Amino acid sequence: MTALALIILAAGKGTRMKSARHKVLHPIGGRPMLLHLLDSLASLDPAATIVVAGDKREQLEAALADHPVTVALQEPQLGTAHAALQARAALTGFDGLILVTFGDCPLLSAATVQRLCNMLDDDTSVAVLGFRPADTAAYGRIIAKDGRVQKMVEHKDATEAERAVTLCNAGVLVAHSRDLWRLLDAVDNHNAAGEYYLPDVVTHALAEGRQVAVIETSEAEVAGVNSRAELAMAEARFQAARRAELMTAGVTLIAPETVFLSHDTAIEADVTIEPFVVFGPGVRVATGTTIRAHSHLEGADIAADCDIGPFARLRPGTSLARGVKIGNFVETKKAVMAEGAKANHLSYLGDATIGAHANIGAGTITCNYDGYFKYQTVIGAGAFIGSNSALIAPVKIGRDAIVAAGSAVSRDVADGELRMVRAEQLVKPGWADRFHDAMRRKKAEKK
Amino acid sequence: MTALALIILAAGKGTRMKSARHKVLHPIGGRPMLLHLLDSLASLDPAATIVVAGDKREQLEAALADHPVTVALQEPQLGTAHAALQARAALTGFDGLILVTFGDCPLLSAATVQRLCNMLDDDTSVAVLGFRPADTAAYGRIIAKDGRVQKMVEHKDATEAERAVTLCNAGVLVAHSRDLWRLLDAVDNHNAAGEYYLPDVVTHALAEGRQVAVIETSEAEVAGVNSRAELAMAEARFQAARRAELMTAGVTLIAPETVFLSHDTAIEADVTIEPFVVFGPGVRVATGTTIRAHSHLEGADIAADCDIGPFARLRPGTSLARGVKIGNFVETKKAVMAEGAKANHLSYLGDATIGAHANIGAGTITCNYDGYFKYQTVIGAGAFIGSNSALIAPVKIGRDAIVAAGSAVSRDVADGELRMVRAEQLVKPGWADRFHDAMRRKKAEKK
Amino acid sequence: MTALALIILAAGKGTRMKSARHKVLHPIGGRPMLLHLLDSLASLDPAATIVVAGDKREQLEAALADHPVTVALQEPQLGTAHAALQARAALTGFDGLILVTFGDCPLLSAATVQRLCNMLDDDTSVAVLGFRPADTAAYGRIIAKDGRVQKMVEHKDATEAERAVTLCNAGVLVAHSRDLWRLLDAVDNHNAAGEYYLPDVVTHALAEGRQVAVIETSEAEVAGVNSRAELAMAEARFQAARRAELMTAGVTLIAPETVFLSHDTAIEADVTIEPFVVFGPGVRVATGTTIRAHSHLEGADIAADCDIGPFARLRPGTSLARGVKIGNFVETKKAVMAEGAKANHLSYLGDATIGAHANIGAGTITCNYDGYFKYQTVIGAGAFIGSNSALIAPVKIGRDAIVAAGSAVSRDVADGELRMVRAEQLVKPGWADRFHDAMRRKKAEKK
Repeated sequence: MTALALIILAAGKGTRMKSARHKVLHPIGGRPMLLHLLDSLASLDPAATIVVAGDKREQLEAALADHPVTVALQEPQLGTAHAALQARAALTGFDGLILVTFGDCPLLSAATVQRLCNMLDDDTSVAVLGFRPADTAAYGRIIAKDGRVQKMVEHKDATEAERAVTLCNAGVLVAHSRDLWRLLDAVDNHNAAGEYYLPDVVTHALAEGRQVAVIETSEAEVAGVNSRAELAMAEARFQAARRAELMTAGVTLIAPETVFLSHDTAIEADVTIEPFVVFGPGVRVATGTTIRAHSHLEGADIAADCDIGPFARLRPGTSLARGVKIGNFVETKKAVMAEGAKANHLSYLGDATIGAHANIGAGTITCNYDGYFKYQTVIGAGAFIGSNSALIAPVKIGRDAIVAAGSAVSRDVADGELRMVRAEQLVKPGWADRFHDAMRRKKAEKK
Repeated sequence: MTALALIILAAGKGTRMKSARHKVLHPIGGRPMLLHLLDSLASLDPAATIVVAGDKREQLEAALADHPVTVALQEPQLGTAHAALQARAALTGFDGLILVTFGDCPLLSAATVQRLCNMLDDDTSVAVLGFRPADTAAYGRIIAKDGRVQKMVEHKDATEAERAVTLCNAGVLVAHSRDLWRLLDAVDNHNAAGEYYLPDVVTHALAEGRQVAVIETSEAEVAGVNSRAELAMAEARFQAARRAELMTAGVTLIAPETVFLSHDTAIEADVTIEPFVVFGPGVRVATGTTIRAHSHLEGADIAADCDIGPFARLRPGTSLARGVKIGNFVETKKAVMAEGAKANHLSYLGDATIGAHANIGAGTITCNYDGYFKYQTVIGAGAFIGSNSALIAPVKIGRDAIVAAGSAVSRDVADGELRMVRAEQLVKPGWADRFHDAMRRKKAEKK
Repeated sequence: MTALALIILAAGKGTRMKSARHKVLHPIGGRPMLLHLLDSLASLDPAATIVVAGDKREQLEAALADHPVTVALQEPQLGTAHAALQARAALTGFDGLILVTFGDCPLLSAATVQRLCNMLDDDTSVAVLGFRPADTAAYGRIIAKDGRVQKMVEHKDATEAERAVTLCNAGVLVAHSRDLWRLLDAVDNHNAAGEYYLPDVVTHALAEGRQVAVIETSEAEVAGVNSRAELAMAEARFQAARRAELMTAGVTLIAPETVFLSHDTAIEADVTIEPFVVFGPGVRVATGTTIRAHSHLEGADIAADCDIGPFARLRPGTSLARGVKIGNFVETKKAVMAEGAKANHLSYLGDATIGAHANIGAGTITCNYDGYFKYQTVIGAGAFIGSNSALIAPVKIGRDAIVAAGSAVSRDVADGELRMVRAEQLVKPGWADRFHDAMRRKKAEKK
């Protein structure tokens, strides 16, 4: 197989985003769109990936620090062909196919790139990607016959007949390295904007007597993201695709349009997701579990037959064994709960290990932080934590131990022990009646 | 009126659902789709209902245990006409009309069935249901003129002219018992799949020189549910219809598409429902009440002029009198609240009776469970429960009594009494300053 | 510039709303639709505004008490022309342009009214507003040529050719005061309903040999609200427009259709709003802040770089300085938090002032209410409130002070001091084991 290198253009200013953040770092499905693209193209096993940066380069470098990617600089920014040429130095000696695409087209698939690569042969120097947008007005047209490009023309330069053509240029192309640099070098800037345009590569290839292939894809796959509204549309397309995948795999989404997934959400068949559930990154849900309405999950590993929510908030480091129940207004963080453990109401469980079938009463709080460090709470199997208790970590509650309601427990509780921290019941007969009388008088006076 | 019997076919494997649950038991509006169908056809007062089961029969039998329904078994599964014949034994001696329909078409209405029944007369043996789907490709065509069927033809066997016909077969039919069994017996399996097809009944009726009537309905009413995506679509249709009904009746849904109703949700005029509200089964809301955003209600009876949410969770057994206020992060379960009682914040009220105008402070928890049994909390009219209190049931708080903030109350409080359970205030001047110094040093060392 | 007076017709019964509330007082974006209209037309600086009321007039008067508006009474209600005439007394001596419009068309814009006004000249007595609805059946047609009306005709009186005209009458018109009253006086009630119809003004102007201009607008702008379903549609249009404005201004709405805005929501660029967020009135959010999913905000002023939610509820009087963090299941009300203060979990902060970098532990509750009056809690900079604490207002917690977990603090805490309110830890070894044994026996006996 011929080697493949990727040139990803990300030097545009992204003015319409009105953002201090680099356009291609705005997230979709919880992940920066550039990383989406890198991740989906990773399956092509690229020999090299060059991201061409301009404005806000340092943001790109930071975001890509852990990725096998070279950031090249385009400065000044003289057009897309000029941008692609800035990748040449990093690809010195590379012999193979080169994809040129855009960092703000995050949904381009590996399959489409593979189809483009497959179009190149001894006669065909370049393969370009076409699509048929609902509104063609902004796009250059591809005049083609039988999958062979005859001409590329900008909308503003097109004749009426050319404008009637609905096949538009997505701006994505593949060429062999032995052709690409030469064709890019041939591009000039003799146009109104004084820019070097990438599509002119096609014109030069045709002028050389070479063939240029075109394949088509959907508008959804190549729609660019130039504004927050377009970002929202890309997110919507991503979500729709992920939801459909899950439903096909046997997951019930009662109202799919109200469930928001992350790029890596993994859910098994026969899980039910009620409306208004948000999945942050790193969630896995096993079969038979129900995620009730209004829940929010990130970094949580949920075994089979659990019952989560409504109004549950599972944070990173949550690991729930089979049959765990997390009820309303309960937050977990770095909480490992063994089989059948329950926390049904109004609790915070952080930095905690909870034994099988332990019952965490309403209003229980693990006091895991002293303002400087975090501490562990360990609760034994079968333990019963009475409502409104504070477990002051580090602390251990033994197997089958009971903590009485309203206790602030600061010392370990042994197996099978009862711990009660409760002051005397101070009784003042009639006091409340006298208080009500006094306050009603005071309230009346204030009026 | 002629008696009516129902044959509901539910023997399909439902492979595309990828579910351990029987397809017709997946819920819509919180109720299994088969029960939806039974419930809406119940108004026709059927003399007998036969559900024909195959795979996962025991699930159907369990779900129908309390219903006047006979479950017949089809084994092996040799096609829809063969399935319908499995109901014959259970209908021995029945003389009247018979509807044959599908368990996975949950939205079929009684009115449509009645219209089908009305088509039968001395000349007309069978009445079939047609519809005009957006995509006809999967469906058999009904060639008809003036409401009389001339021919039924499968898509794959249809001529170009027949394919141009948009009237498709919904698979639902009514025939008189004196005709149906004979026509079903006449159906053979001389086709590619080797199956006995129900629509062949029509062919045989026409061959007998009898008339077959056709009436039309919407695709929404007869769309089948064969996958989770189709289940979500049926749910969406159900929800849209229920929301429209409520709005017509004078309920304000600020964003109707964000309110999820149950099959039995009952809401009076001049109730306002804010966005993101989920109604489980058994909720009734009287006029003048507002259900604020992000609320979740099941099994709750809410009188007039209540103020619920946002972020309220009302569970079964909640009964709220006029003017009750339930605020954010409050859960109620088997809680009966008298007129004007308030629980505005962060509370759990379970197995509780709360008197008129009682004020339940933030963070109040009824400790109703000891791990084995549930116990009652009774709070008198005008009582004031201070914040962060735990009421350890069984316990009674008297009329106008006051529980001081932070108290864990384990003994009854008399009318007009103050109860305070609070330890001494331990004061350590300068201790916190020294602690901060020490911890900052420790933190610095760790780096 | 010619003076402008507004006549807003609001005398219809609104029967289809099925509401005890006056139709034009149903809210959109959290504000009664009539006030929406008044507010958007306020930019035209009207010399006088007359609202013509009928049924439920006292509700209108109450709602408009603080507005420079005259409420005129139409009784009996004899049609729209008759309604407009009821404004004459209040406009005695007014010389200028008069807009006649409907209180239940809340989205009419000042720009459109200005365009109408601009159409009037020496030859042109009246300017009317047309639109092209998706379904024309309910509307009168405007027969016009080159922006000049030739005839207005009711749907039921229209010829086939006239019915083919898609330009419909929105019911909104502008005329000069010197023409309007005369034209209105000329209208008769010789029709089936025996009513005086406002569009007849046009017929009379044409009969006088004067010109009538027509301009067009979108159906969205002039769609009337006659039912809860139409109210929901108007709300949806309002929300869509507001969301688009925010995105254009550089706000990220991950799922715009799940964010509900108020008429006055003010959000700066580079704020991210996650799904399922509801903004009540009076919210301002500065750049760099994230509002996480499932949050609900009203009357809150949020500085830059704050981190809010998920499941946060900010109520009126909340003011958050830069970098404040409000986490899940936290409610604030009249809470002023200084830079970097944090309340991450399950807290109620009411009538509170919180110093810079103070840390409010999980389950903290300010006990601000004694059933009669509200009291203040003041927390110093750098203070640490341990989890599950109750701060019984009025109370002051000093700078860098520490409140131990589970404390109910009823007296001030000095700077740098530790306050701990906690009873002795009562230890009963083996008690829990014996309890479990006894209860298991009891449970077994009960079965």
